[in-house]
Amino acid sequence: MSEPNPIFIGKKPVMNYVLACLTLFQNGSDSVIIKARGRAISKAVDVAQITIRRFATGIGVKKINTDTEQVKSNKTGSVNNVSSIEIHLGR
Amino acid sequence: MSEPNPIFIGKKPVMNYVLACLTLFQNGSDSVIIKARGRAISKAVDVAQITIRRFATGIGVKKINTDTEQVKSNKTGSVNNVSSIEIHLGR
Repeated sequence: MSEPNPIFIGKKPVMNYVLACLTLFQNGSDSVIIKARGRAISKAVDVAQITIRRFATGIGVKKINTDTEQVKSNKTGSVNNVSSIEIHLGR
Repeated sequence: MSEPNPIFIGKKPVMNYVLACLTLFQNGSDSVIIKARGRAISKAVDVAQITIRRFATGIGVKKINTDTEQVKSNKTGSVNNVSSIEIHLGR
């Protein structure tokens, strides 16, 4: 398996996402993509750093992309711009 | 002037930092580095995205680095790991 597997960062504790990354790598993935929007961007960087520093030797950050996404609020119907990040981890 | 100018993202409103970036570019800088730690990382990505999308045509994200820094708490004296980000904007 070499196709990228996105992990979306939400409101769970950081370690849940670290574990998800490690599981993917141990199941043979060569690369994992961590995605986050808005406030979760900080947590995405934490997940990447903890994964590569504490647990996964030989894995590093290959590429980081940032973008802006338009999110429509369900409550008010207004459209907001939200920053997003994609962190590509790989062997 | 082509040496990089770091802008540290803190607790001020996003637009203050966008303005700081734009000022540096308009004073002739070729590149600006946006730095942030911890929770401010999300805001740093916002600053970069707003700068390149809304105001500064011809400027883009050249490189993004993430790292872990050790921060010593003044209150308790304990050392904590904090994620940090460096976003390099340039022409």
